[in-house]
Parts: sequence; C-alpha cells; structure tokens
Amino acid sequence: MPYERLDKDIQMMKEAGINVVRIAESTWSTAEPQDGVFDYSHIDRVLNAMHKAGIQVVIGTPTYAVPTWLVKKYPDVLAVTPQGPNRYGVRQNMDITNTHFRFHAERVIRKMLEHVKSHPAIIGYQVDNETKHYNTTGDNVQALFVQYMKEKYKTLDVINKVYGLDYWSNRINNWDDFPSTVGTINASLSAEFSKFQRKLVTDYLAWQAALVREYKRPDQFITQNFDLDWRGYSYGIQADVDHFAAAKAMDVAGIDIYHPTQDKLTGIEISLGGDLTRSMKLDASNRGKNYLVLETEAQGFPQWVPYPGQLRLQAFSHLASGANMLEYWHWHSIHNSVETYWKGLLSHDFEPNPTYDEAKTIGRDFEKLSPKLVNLKKTNSVAMLFSNEALTGFNAFSFGWGAREKYNDVLRPMYDALYQMNVGVDFVDPTSTNLESYKVLIVPALYAASDALLNRLNNFVKNGGHIVYTFKSGFSDENVKVRSTRQPGIINEACGIYYSQFTFPEHVSLKDDPYKVGKEQNTVKTWMELITPTTASVLAYYDHPVWGNYAAITENKYGKGFATYIGCITSDAILKKVLEDAVKKAGVWGPDQQLAFPLITKSGVNQQGKAIHYYFNYSATPASLTYSYKAGKELLSNGVIAPNASVSLEPWGVKIVEEN
Amino acid sequence: MPYERLDKDIQMMKEAGINVVRIAESTWSTAEPQDGVFDYSHIDRVLNAMHKAGIQVVIGTPTYAVPTWLVKKYPDVLAVTPQGPNRYGVRQNMDITNTHFRFHAERVIRKMLEHVKSHPAIIGYQVDNETKHYNTTGDNVQALFVQYMKEKYKTLDVINKVYGLDYWSNRINNWDDFPSTVGTINASLSAEFSKFQRKLVTDYLAWQAALVREYKRPDQFITQNFDLDWRGYSYGIQADVDHFAAAKAMDVAGIDIYHPTQDKLTGIEISLGGDLTRSMKLDASNRGKNYLVLETEAQGFPQWVPYPGQLRLQAFSHLASGANMLEYWHWHSIHNSVETYWKGLLSHDFEPNPTYDEAKTIGRDFEKLSPKLVNLKKTNSVAMLFSNEALTGFNAFSFGWGAREKYNDVLRPMYDALYQMNVGVDFVDPTSTNLESYKVLIVPALYAASDALLNRLNNFVKNGGHIVYTFKSGFSDENVKVRSTRQPGIINEACGIYYSQFTFPEHVSLKDDPYKVGKEQNTVKTWMELITPTTASVLAYYDHPVWGNYAAITENKYGKGFATYIGCITSDAILKKVLEDAVKKAGVWGPDQQLAFPLITKSGVNQQGKAIHYYFNYSATPASLTYSYKAGKELLSNGVIAPNASVSLEPWGVKIVEEN
Amino acid sequence: MPYERLDKDIQMMKEAGINVVRIAESTWSTAEPQDGVFDYSHIDRVLNAMHKAGIQVVIGTPTYAVPTWLVKKYPDVLAVTPQGPNRYGVRQNMDITNTHFRFHAERVIRKMLEHVKSHPAIIGYQVDNETKHYNTTGDNVQALFVQYMKEKYKTLDVINKVYGLDYWSNRINNWDDFPSTVGTINASLSAEFSKFQRKLVTDYLAWQAALVREYKRPDQFITQNFDLDWRGYSYGIQADVDHFAAAKAMDVAGIDIYHPTQDKLTGIEISLGGDLTRSMKLDASNRGKNYLVLETEAQGFPQWVPYPGQLRLQAFSHLASGANMLEYWHWHSIHNSVETYWKGLLSHDFEPNPTYDEAKTIGRDFEKLSPKLVNLKKTNSVAMLFSNEALTGFNAFSFGWGAREKYNDVLRPMYDALYQMNVGVDFVDPTSTNLESYKVLIVPALYAASDALLNRLNNFVKNGGHIVYTFKSGFSDENVKVRSTRQPGIINEACGIYYSQFTFPEHVSLKDDPYKVGKEQNTVKTWMELITPTTASVLAYYDHPVWGNYAAITENKYGKGFATYIGCITSDAILKKVLEDAVKKAGVWGPDQQLAFPLITKSGVNQQGKAIHYYFNYSATPASLTYSYKAGKELLSNGVIAPNASVSLEPWGVKIVEEN
Repeated sequence: MPYERLDKDIQMMKEAGINVVRIAESTWSTAEPQDGVFDYSHIDRVLNAMHKAGIQVVIGTPTYAVPTWLVKKYPDVLAVTPQGPNRYGVRQNMDITNTHFRFHAERVIRKMLEHVKSHPAIIGYQVDNETKHYNTTGDNVQALFVQYMKEKYKTLDVINKVYGLDYWSNRINNWDDFPSTVGTINASLSAEFSKFQRKLVTDYLAWQAALVREYKRPDQFITQNFDLDWRGYSYGIQADVDHFAAAKAMDVAGIDIYHPTQDKLTGIEISLGGDLTRSMKLDASNRGKNYLVLETEAQGFPQWVPYPGQLRLQAFSHLASGANMLEYWHWHSIHNSVETYWKGLLSHDFEPNPTYDEAKTIGRDFEKLSPKLVNLKKTNSVAMLFSNEALTGFNAFSFGWGAREKYNDVLRPMYDALYQMNVGVDFVDPTSTNLESYKVLIVPALYAASDALLNRLNNFVKNGGHIVYTFKSGFSDENVKVRSTRQPGIINEACGIYYSQFTFPEHVSLKDDPYKVGKEQNTVKTWMELITPTTASVLAYYDHPVWGNYAAITENKYGKGFATYIGCITSDAILKKVLEDAVKKAGVWGPDQQLAFPLITKSGVNQQGKAIHYYFNYSATPASLTYSYKAGKELLSNGVIAPNASVSLEPWGVKIVEEN
Repeated sequence: MPYERLDKDIQMMKEAGINVVRIAESTWSTAEPQDGVFDYSHIDRVLNAMHKAGIQVVIGTPTYAVPTWLVKKYPDVLAVTPQGPNRYGVRQNMDITNTHFRFHAERVIRKMLEHVKSHPAIIGYQVDNETKHYNTTGDNVQALFVQYMKEKYKTLDVINKVYGLDYWSNRINNWDDFPSTVGTINASLSAEFSKFQRKLVTDYLAWQAALVREYKRPDQFITQNFDLDWRGYSYGIQADVDHFAAAKAMDVAGIDIYHPTQDKLTGIEISLGGDLTRSMKLDASNRGKNYLVLETEAQGFPQWVPYPGQLRLQAFSHLASGANMLEYWHWHSIHNSVETYWKGLLSHDFEPNPTYDEAKTIGRDFEKLSPKLVNLKKTNSVAMLFSNEALTGFNAFSFGWGAREKYNDVLRPMYDALYQMNVGVDFVDPTSTNLESYKVLIVPALYAASDALLNRLNNFVKNGGHIVYTFKSGFSDENVKVRSTRQPGIINEACGIYYSQFTFPEHVSLKDDPYKVGKEQNTVKTWMELITPTTASVLAYYDHPVWGNYAAITENKYGKGFATYIGCITSDAILKKVLEDAVKKAGVWGPDQQLAFPLITKSGVNQQGKAIHYYFNYSATPASLTYSYKAGKELLSNGVIAPNASVSLEPWGVKIVEEN
Repeated sequence: MPYERLDKDIQMMKEAGINVVRIAESTWSTAEPQDGVFDYSHIDRVLNAMHKAGIQVVIGTPTYAVPTWLVKKYPDVLAVTPQGPNRYGVRQNMDITNTHFRFHAERVIRKMLEHVKSHPAIIGYQVDNETKHYNTTGDNVQALFVQYMKEKYKTLDVINKVYGLDYWSNRINNWDDFPSTVGTINASLSAEFSKFQRKLVTDYLAWQAALVREYKRPDQFITQNFDLDWRGYSYGIQADVDHFAAAKAMDVAGIDIYHPTQDKLTGIEISLGGDLTRSMKLDASNRGKNYLVLETEAQGFPQWVPYPGQLRLQAFSHLASGANMLEYWHWHSIHNSVETYWKGLLSHDFEPNPTYDEAKTIGRDFEKLSPKLVNLKKTNSVAMLFSNEALTGFNAFSFGWGAREKYNDVLRPMYDALYQMNVGVDFVDPTSTNLESYKVLIVPALYAASDALLNRLNNFVKNGGHIVYTFKSGFSDENVKVRSTRQPGIINEACGIYYSQFTFPEHVSLKDDPYKVGKEQNTVKTWMELITPTTASVLAYYDHPVWGNYAAITENKYGKGFATYIGCITSDAILKKVLEDAVKKAGVWGPDQQLAFPLITKSGVNQQGKAIHYYFNYSATPASLTYSYKAGKELLSNGVIAPNASVSLEPWGVKIVEEN
C-alpha cells in the first residue's frame, strides 16, 4: 500500500457488498522477517478491522512464495528443474519436498494458526495457493521416485518389460543405476514420473491440510485454490495436479477462473471451471458439490476491461454453475512488480470506476437473492471422462514429431460444443465411482488406460449407456505401452471397429457431407485413423482417392447401449452434429436445447427445493427467448413469468427464474 | 592483412581524400602478446607511415576485446550474465568491474600511451569502443549493487516500501539476504539495477578518459564511439548507456551510425544519430556541439551496397546534422571471421570499385568545402525529451504480457514524423538544464519520472511552452512505482484530463476521421487510454460501440502554453497531423516545412557566420524545389542561387546553398 | 516384445520373402547388464532361429547407446557439447573419444564377436550406427584438437596469419592459451574444428572396423549405416561425417534413406542417397560400387503410410540406383518410447496390413529377379562435386546474418533438376581421383577450396570438360580465408568473369526472360553477384534499374571446354534450363532425356552384361512412354518389348526392361 487507507478500503468494500476477503497467502517475508522471528501484526490489524466491519476472512497459509533469508540459508529450498536450479524472485520456485522448506513452512503455518485461530472473523483456511510440483526434479526427488518405483513395481524386470526399456539400451539392471528421468526418451517412464510428481502435490496439500486441521474450529473450512491449464487464461485440465485426488483433503473445493472478455466473452471457461470444480467432491446423492471461486478477474489484463454488463453476467454465471462464493483478484491494482497490469476492482488511483460501480450492483443483488441462489443443486445426465494419465500419455506424443496439439485441444472442442447446445455436464475421472450413474459419457483421447477401465466402459455401454469416443482412445495401457491387440484396444468390442493404420489428412473431407455442414465446414484435419467396421454402422467415410474406403465416424449398438467413435479431427460444426445426435439418441434433449449459444441457460434446484433457471445473453445484441417451464418469478426484477412467456435479454444480460 | 600493402593502401586513401584514420582498438592480443610483454611495433609502423602521408590518426585504447592469455589466467575476467559465464571469442564479453581486467587494462593503456604519446600524427584518442555493461551480473557486481543501494536508500524499509517488495514475499529484511536481481519479478528493482549498470559504464569510461588525460597533449581530444539501439541497424535510444552522463568525460562526442540503403535509404538514422550525439555536449549558447561520426558503413552488409549517389548523399547528410568528421568502418573488407560480409570501402580484392570511386568525389568536395561546412552551428526550437529511466520502466511492461513494443517504438514514429516535415530537433533528457529554452517538447512515453520532473514540465507549459505527450507518460514515479493519484500522474494538471482504465483497441478508429487521413489511415492500434477531459478540448474521440465516449487525443491551454496528449497508438498519418498542428501552434513552421520527405533540408550557420542550407533528394526520382531564402551560392557547383529559384536535385542528389 | 512370438515373426518374414535381418545395435544394456557381466542369450536365440529359417543376419556392434551402469560409473562418458554435459536417455549422447567409453566399447564388441563369430547365419557386421561426432567439445576433445593443430600448422604464427586471428584480439600467442573453439567468432577456426570432429568419426569407425576385422571370416563384410542431412527426412550431404574418408574402412557402404511419401513421393532422396553411397567406394573401372540400404521406412511416420504401389515403387528405385540390399526400419512397430509412431512393416498389432501385404509382392519379385537385378553396374558422365569443407565454410556465413539457407539448399535444386531430366550422376569430392573421367562437373557453392583444387578444375575445363559453378564458388581458400585476388578466386580464369560486389536482389529478374520461363518463373532471389565478363559470354543480365549492367549467368570457352557460372539464386525453372543447356553442350543428352519427371528412368548393366532399364511413374496418374532401346524383356511381367514400343505405367508403377 502506498499509503494508509484501510478504513477507506473497507468502506468501499462495504459499498460494493463485499462480505468476504482472502488474505495472507504469499506474505511469508512479512510474517517471518527473519528465521524464527514472527510478526503477525499486519494480519491482526486486518482481521480486527474486517471483523468490526462485518466482513469475513479466509486466511491463506503463506507458503507459496519463500522469503529471501530462507533461500540465503538453504539454497536447496529452490527446486532443481530440467532447466537447472531455480532463481530467487518468482513465486512457486521451491522444491515442495525439500526438508528445509517443509520444516520452515510447518513452523510458519503453526505459528500463524496459533496466533489467529481464535479470531472470530475467520471462516476458513486456504492451504497454499495454485499449488503444483513446479517440475521439481533434483536428486532428492529422484531418490523419492526410485523408492516409489520400488514400491509400485517391486522388480526392475517388470519395469524393463512394461516400459520397453531394452529400446536404445535404456534397460536398468540395478536400482543404483536408475538414471534421472530428465533426459529420458521413454514416455512410459516420463509419464510415470509425471504421475509421481502429481502425487507429490497431493501429499503436500494433504500435509498442509492436516496441519491446519489441528487448529481450525469445526465451523471453519479448509480449501485450496486449484487452477486450470493456463493459456493466457484458464483453458482446460491441469496437467500438473490430480485435482480429484488432491481435493480429498479439502472440505470444499476452490478454483480460480480467468477468461477473455469484451467481444471474446463466451462464458465457456466459467462453465468448464465450475463443472470441473463442482465435480471434485461428491454430495450424498453422488453428484458434485458447491464450490468456491477464490479468484476471478475484475478488470484484469488491459484487454479484459469488461464492457458494461459483463462483470455482472460473469458473476451470475459462476452461481449458475454451482459456485457459493465469488472473490476477485484483487481488490485494488498493485503499484509495483509483475502484476501491475493485472488490475483489480479498483485502479491504481483507488477511485471508483465503471468496473467497481458495476460490482456494487452485483453486491446488492447477491445480498438480496443469496437465500434463493446459494447451494444450487445440479443433476446432469452427461459426464466428460477426463484422465490425467491419458493427458500425460497423449501429450508425450501428440500427433507426432513437431505437433503442438495437446490433450486439452481435443477435450475443449467437445466441451465447447456441449456448452453451446446448453447440455449440462459433470466431470468424472477413472477413479470416479459414480460413472455408471450417467446416461452419456464423452471420452476425449483416452490414450492411456488400464484394461480394467476399458472393460468397465464396455460394460457401461453394454448396460445401456452411450459413449462418444475420439481417436487415440484405448491406444495404450496405463503404462503408456501401446496395446499389441487390435486398435482401438479393448473398446473395439463396444465400438465394433478396428484399425491398424493412421495418417495425416491432406485435402480430406467426409464423403457426401453426411452432416450437411457445407463445403467450408466439411473438413478433416491433423489426424485420421483408417477404420474398418466389424459390427458398427459407418456414420461417415473419408473422401479421398486412396483412403475413401475407410470409415471416419462410426456408431455401434452394443448390448443395450451405443458407442460412437470419432476417428479423426473434424471441424467444430461436424463435431457438434455428432454430439447432438449422440445426446438425442440417449434421450437427453429437452427444452433447454431449443436455445443455443449465445443464449445460454443453466439450471438447478435451490435450498427451497425450487427449480432455478438462469438465462444469459452472451452477446452485444439484445435477444429474446421463450420460457419453457412452469410459471415462476424473475428474481432480479421480481416479475412474474408465465409458461411460454417471451423473455427479453439485454446485451450481456441475465435473467433468473425461480419456478413457483 | 593477407599480404604487405601499407604503402598501396595509403596511396589509395590519399586518392580518396582520406585525412584521418582510426586504429588500435581491439588489438590487445597483438599489443600485449603475453602478460607484461608489450609490442607496439605495428602501431609505430602505421603512425609513421600515416604521418609521412599527412594522414592524422585517432588511437583507440585496445580494451574492448580481451586476449586469450588474460582469460586463461583470470577466467573471472569474463562476465557472468543471467545466461551464465561468458565464453572466450566474441568482443565485449568482459566484466568491466573485474579487478583483474581493470589492472591489465590500465597497464596496457598506460604502456601504449607512454609509447605513442609524442607522435605528431595523433590528433585524439578514443577510449574503448561501443562500451556497454554487457549485462554483467556476477557476485562482485551484485555486491557493488548492494553497496550502491545502501548509499542511495540508507534503509531496507525504504526500499521495501517504494519498490513494493511485500508482494510475492520479496521483502528484504537484512542486507545480507539481498538476493540477486537476475530472477526478480519486481520492475522497480530491475530498473534500478539497470540504472546501476549504466552507471558502471559511465564510471568505466570516465576512468579510462582520466587515464588517457594523464598522457594526452592539450591539442588532442578524447572521444568515445557511442552507439544506438541495434535492430540490424542503428535504431534509437541506447538502453544500456546513459549517453548524456557518459559523454561528460569526453572532449567531443562520437557515434557510429549504420542504416539501410538502396531503396530503403531515408536518412532518418543519420539525422537521429546526429541530433542525439550533437545534443550530448552543449556549447556556450546552450545548444548542441559538433561531433564525430567514428563509424558508418561504406559497402556494409550485402543488402547495403549503395546505389550510385547514395554514399555521397549520406556523407553530406552527416555534415548537415553537425558532424565534423566522417569515418567508414572500415577501409577494406576483412578476409576472416564474423565481419567478413561487413564490407569496407574496398572489397576483399583491394581493387577500386564503384563505392570507393564515389568516396573519391566526396573526399575532393570535402577538401574544397570544409572551411564552409565544418563547425556548422544549429539552433532548433523543438526538442525531444527522452529518458533512460522511462525507457527501462516502459520496456519492463511494454503493453502487457507478450507485447513486443519497446520505448523506441514510441519514440521513433514521433522523430520520423518531424524528420519528414523537416522540423529540426535536439534531444534533451531529464538532467538537461537547457530544457526551458525550447518552444516545443516532444515527450514519448515518459513512463517513469520523478514528481520534480513532471512539475517542471507543468511549469514549462505554464510559462508558454508546448508539450506533446504520448500515453503512459507520468504513469509511474522514478522508482517505477505506479502513482496512486489520478492518471496521467501530475501532468494531468497541464493536460486537463484523467483516466483510470485502458485497454487494447480492437476495430477502433477516431470518430469522424478528425485528421482527414482516410479510412485506411484512420486507425488506432495496440493501446488506448480511456480519457475523460477536465479542462482539455477533445481533438479526437474513439470510434467504438462501448468506448466512444472517451477521448483519444486532447489539447489543453494551461497558463501561457499548451499541452497535447495522445492517449493511443495511431497510424503514422494521424501522428504526423497531431505533431504538425502542435508545431504550427507553437509558431515553428516556416519555409522548410513547404518541403517534405523525400525532399529533406537541414540548415545551420557556418564559421563565417553565413547560413547554410542543405537540400537532399532521398529518392530515385529527380526532383525540384523552390529555394526560399536569401540569394546565395550552391557550393558543389559554385552556381548562383537567387531567391525563389528553382533548384533541381538528381536521384539521391544533394545541393548546398550558402547565403550571401 | 510384449509377448513371445519369434516363431510367428519368422513365419511372417518368410512369407514376405525377407532373407536378411539386422540385429543387436543399441542392445548394450541387454548384452552387458552389469559392468563385465555378459549375456548374449538373446542374440543366440535369434541367430539360431534365423539360421534354421534360412534368414541371414547382419550383426551390429551395440555401441551407439550406452547402458545406465556405464554412465553411473563414468559420467564423463557423456559428451560435453556447447550446450553443456549431455544427459542420459537418448542414444548418441557419448563422447566417442572418451577413454572409459572406448575401453568398455572395445570389451563389449570383442566379447560379442568371440561369442558369435562362428555362427553360420552371420553374413556381415555393421560397426556402430549412424555414427557422428555429436558435437563433442569437452576439455579432452579440446586437448586433442590443439595437438592436431600443432601437427598440422607447426606454429601459432601460421594459424594467426591464415585464420586472421588478430581480428577482435583473438590472436593466440601460446599453445597453452589456446581457447575452446566453442565461443569463437572466427569461421576459419570453427571450420577447422568441424573438420577435426569429422576426423574423430573417421578414426572411431576405423577403430571399430579394425576390431571387427580381427574376428570376422573372409566371407563376411563390414559396413556402416551412414545417414544424410536430416530435415525430417534424408535431405543432403551430411555435415558431421566425411563419408568418403570414413567409408575407406568399410568393405561395403551402407546408408539409411527416409523420405516423404503419399502425394509428396518423388524418388529424389532414394536416388540422391543411392548415388552418394554408390560413390563412396570405387570399383575396378573407377566408378561407384553397389551398396546396402540398411534402413528405409515401411510405414514410418503417420504422414508416410504409403499409398498402394508406393512401397513397391520405392523398393525397385533403390535397386535402380545400385542397391544390393534393402532393409526396413523396422520389422514391427515399437510399443514404447520415442519411436512409437515410427511404424514398421507390421503395426503394433502384429497383424498383416496393406503395407506388409505389398512387401510380400516385393519379396516374391526380388526372389525371382535377383540374379538379373543385383550388382547393377552404372556408368555416368556427369558428377556433382561436393565438399564437406565448402559446406562448413558456406554454412558459417550463409547469405549473411540471419540467413537460413545452407549448402544443401544450393546443392539440392541442382541435383533435383538433373534427376527430373533423368540425367544420372555420381558424386565426387575434392579427394576423388576419378574426377577427370567425367564430361560434366556440377559444382554448387564451392565456398572453401584450396588453390590446388581450383587449378585442377581450371585444367579440367582446359582439357575439354564442362563445369557448371554457382555463386560463392572459389570465394575463400581451404582455411575459409577470403581470397584477396579477384573473385571468383582462381576459377575466374576458366569462367572469364570477375566481381567485387554482391547484394540481395529485391524485385530482380533476368533481362528479357532469356530462358523463356515466363514472368512467374523469371526470378532471382536471395543472392546476386554483380558480375563483369572478361572473356565470357553473358547468358543473362539482371533486370534492375541500378544493377542492369551486371551479368547474372555467363558461359566461357576455356581451352577445349566450357565453364558456366551462375551468379545468383534463380527459380528452379531457370536453373533447369541452364543445366539442360550445359548438359546438351557436353553431349550428354540421349533418349532418356525425352522423358522427364514424373517419368523417371534409371539404367545399368547387369551381371549377365545386359542393359537394364527401369521405368518409374512417380505420380498418381497412369502414364505411357516410348521405349527407345533395343528389343528386350519386361522382367516383372515377362513380356516382350520391341523397340519404340509403347510402355504403359500404372499410378506409382514400375517396369524393368532387360535388353536382349
């Protein structure tokens, strides 16, 4: 802070209806200015002021950025990565397995919690922040990995066999010779190391959560601010954390979600981040639980300054996906350092501005409507099956040398198509026990998967489920060893197809434009599998002088269910049609599907047991739609909505109907 | 030299009218073949031969490339940079603060000067060459930096406060913990380190100059070959040297200027390099002094082989900007190593060639006209205010993550527009004492500036000056801490505007094309500030469905002067119009402005007190213009020029008129 | 292998007519699982099974990938390169000069050979694989290099002189000070180091061959699997190996050739790789010898899955260039690691597939026709003169800073044009003693060459030969020192031209389209020398307002021969015309030149002394041609072919005619 203005800040927060703040993460150098010297006066000051103002506080443990003295004393606190030892300066540069780091982290956490634990303002704790493994690969990590491998595989013979280490003389004949995985060209080994690194994150977060649990009151929660694959904004599945595993140690799941705005605002990232975070923990009915949005942008990057209405649209979109809290990163813009141009609700001048002014309307509406909107209960029939193992295995090869497509480039178009059709989805992963409760599973590039998982998926179809697979699914086992049976491995049974060759399409389309998408959209790109049906119906053949006899997309009746297989990358238009057909066939097609992007609808059941329908206009053009449910009340305007009433939406507008 | 041909070289030099050569820089390994063994016979030989031929010599100290034995003995002579320790081979790889380097550099300089100091051929000395700090960042440099910080700020509390080091736990609580700045994410800290590194250069050059001053005769000068931001040619302000500070230790400023030729020859770099170097040292009337062009290209890169007439046009263009000497790098093309394809006046075959033949005409004209052309006195009403601190601060953030625009990308379009309008400019920086003597200041992106400087600029306007500011000016203080007052900080008073938000323009133009530049040119790109006028008149509004109420360009009467504020990056056409309006309003618009690029005119007053007007045709098409001054004489042809006479210029032609 | 199936594999090999397999290279970690513990049971097993099946075996020494225990024990086995020490994992990461590596490599080779040498299945040995120097540059290599330099140049004065080391103070005054070449900016020094590194490869391969020679039977051969410049496929001359020197230690030359297929299959790489490998060793008549294709793709990369007919077309193309063996890399696709998507004859499922099925037809035809096709004798009148020294020297500078063109970018268009005209070529290098036996020499960018070589080439012309030179030839001597005489150095005599300037062409074409290639093709790009003829006729002038008086392409009668000089990079169409004219003038134009790509013909004389003519259709369109030789027999169909008969070719088809 360039000058003292806590009272003024709190006054402006109150005016904006802010009733929770998150503090203290990454303040280690202030809280422990020297080794063993602790100073929590800055925290006390804020806690007291907030409490007085009736604002609740989430306290973050301060561990995700280390102080100068710690690094000076124990340089090995900084992780060694494949690029060499890290340097001081950035956050998240530490080796989370380092014993000096752990000792001092534990001490500063315990000291802080002892100091603040009784404070009435605190409603919960966040352990660390956006925790990942930061690709720590030093000697100590290698030693832990070898130990992990011994426990998992018992003998090197097994490893040599299932990883195919004879190739290029990579065979390991003695545990003492186990080389660092940094230089390995064996994707089975590197994928296992990635899995081990994700386990380091799970263990580290569980360790922090257990520490906090010793101090916290029963009414307080523990959460973690998970984050997504970052492509300048929140994009897809996080490669470096096993979210479902790591969330086990938390009471409630948290997430940060950042996304483009202005003309590029679609709501997709809000929806995807919400669906994923909601799915991290299950409720009594085996469906996802409400979650916390611990960070999202206010003004954010210069290119994200929201248009009028957008901040408000975004806020209600988070609620519509099941969020129970919404926090902006950050209150005011910072005057120094790397996030100077990542602007908060306030600009650097601390004055009211259009973004802050819009936040005030959100605060007012939240205050009024919270009892009706919080704890929204959502029940979907469609789930996306993602897999960290498949992600790692797929990304190791992508579509060949020099290809830049990643797992999320396969997953996102599928998610986006469903979002645009207003088909609500949950996320499941191979550990999910509720997988069988869905009608439709969407399975992108399930590249690495155990026999057990694939057999389970075959059974899912046999028992009446519908699965939509893409190319590359079933290709390798859980050790990223390509199956030596027919492809797609094991699921060829449910899919009724096989292939043994694949290539890159050049000037390839689908024969006779089977999805009627027109010449421009009737395209196949990047990857094509040369599929021969056994029992499947061919939905589309390739159009190409040589490959024209091979199938591109197939559908197979198997037991009581259906399996659709997409053997190539298609245009988004084709993909949408394939998914639409699959969803329709599964009977998951209702009035919400009469609407399509930019008109987005989300629904659920509120605490009063009443159905809630959100309607969003993700465009700069006014729009109207026909309300297709029971009579209800539009909550923002308090207006009555009759069945089949016409509902108008302003540009970037929102309406919320509670059924009577 | 592949074979002995000194006499032949000198003969050919004489034929080309060459009367000065520069020798000896980067010859350390020849002058001191082993530690403490000195051999200056190669220098003696050249000095004697040149003296005999009546050619004067500038001697360079040999320090900017180190010999093998020095590195072998003291490996720490090579700088450690953020990329690790340097390797032997290239020039400018040393740590200029290293004590072993300094000891041996001093010794070889003293030995050489003792040896040559009495030689009558020597007219001056160049200390080192194109000296910079080469990003030296090793432990010793870090120790010096911490010492510098102690002296500057006294306490860490001050640093932590003004640099905002609490952020991401970067707070430093003990001087012993002060981390290397190499990894820092704090631009306040990295900018201060850059400033400290520039000071290393200033100190190093002053140290060398002081050494040389012990030996030099009063009639001899000391200079340094400064150079500009390099983008494959000389482009703009040098980030790594504080030219105005470093020039203090020199008797005369020197520069090297390299630029595109052939169809891309514009003269801009010659003019900019000249204006900047002329401004490095002030004369009695508080205006710039004549300077030396210590290097410029003859044939240069393959793509620079000059068209007929271009070498000559370039030579007179240097004089027109105030150069008193013109040296080519280099005499003949080199037969080995990295500059093999950086060709000199002679090709590798040492034979006459078209470029050398044209140089002969230049030599003849210089010999004839020198008394009338040398020591040209130039007096401009317009100055560009540049700032190394603003450059560093701006470049740390540019326009956000991933943006590649640099400070010079803001400065150059402004300079280029003025050049194309034939508006002569000087350069000033925040230390300039003569700033108030100009009518117009052009201020690009003055991102980091002290309150004192900004208040001084407000006063400049109040007292009747005209300033043209761009976006980002005033944004942060001298510590690269963003001001927490209204933006643009402090200068909002003179500018009569404020803003608190900014964004990237997408499909944005200026409303109603206020500068009549046509649809193609009526564009806004990369950056836009959302400006609200307080007392300013709005010269242009943004054309955009959402941002249309914000001002893009404003003008404000403040006291007796005016301040123009350009809040966005515009097309060059718009920028030119804005500058034209500002210059006209300031009354700096005369007959020279009837001409425009490619017809360039430069003027000054010669030693005889007579006005000199240069006219250049920077194009391949013959041109003519109306001479608009008193009757005079065209010096190259010795022809009489009457007022309002038509003056014709050949392709790439030049004429020089001396008023009677 | 995921499961035991040796018998099944052999059965499928037999069905495909496979009669040779190559085994054991890169199996060190299996053959010597621990230091000094040897296990060849896996080799015995395969040898016995193959022998039983009548399949012959080539054994590779297992040294090109090192085992974990060796690196663990002797980390210095891994090469230090300019990027630092190598890491374990990849193949070819070792320092081939390292004494620990050599000791253990020798031992494992000797142990293996002792073990297998009597086995009747073995027909020959391959020493190492795709051996290069892997840019090993550690201290030991530097010490060897300094020793090499002492022996070559005797004194540093010579080196300083011919390398021009005075420049930038690089002079070396004491052998002890000799700096690592890693950081050098002197291309003479770096080129010599490259030459020394190539010598390391030659020496290393000779050392391995000598070891093997101690054990091998007289009826067994020694070969090496050489490879080409890799650009995602085999492209041109290998920079890191001196193929002609290294091949001396081999009994027969071997090569791997990989190339695009599908719509991009041209046969050029098969032809170029074949011509080069055939030229590595000479037969009694001083022409190239038959060679082995030790690796080529079956399915290969996904984008290389062959169209029907292509695998067969490729196989006969290899034979047509003189190959005596054809091996696919590899038998089956690998289930783990980096080459998972480099597919073999079999896919991962080990089932028959279209590619394998086509291989079966090849096997059948080979079995039937081998006596007529093996040991094809080829006699060409045209040779391409390539030079590793010219390659290194040229690549050091290319066409200037930032240029990306390499030597092979000059060589390939010339080779490609000749291929497309069905002009058969051999390769020669400066050490070739048979150079004078050709009628035409094609000389791309002979940048670095000794006086002796250039004088020899002048004499070649004087005695009636025809040479076609490109730009940059003769420019520097064998030390990459630019000649200080007129350019092109020495060959200006035979070429009858000179130039001293060169530039980059912008909007330059050839005046009056002298080759009638049309506006689109009449282009000059990247580089142009400003040539003045002395005795030469000008074939083409530049079309440019300034450079229009300079010649672009010239031809000179010199003695009994002609020299053509191409001073610029032209379109491929112009280049083809220049080469066509030159070849015609030399009288090397016959019936084969009535055909042109995509109709390719190759010929030779078989063991029975009969002329063999191959006809290939490198396109997807059926084609026909007129047979222009004596009556003969089409071998694949056993059909009679009369003179002037029309021969039809299927898409990607092949016919082989044996003259009666």
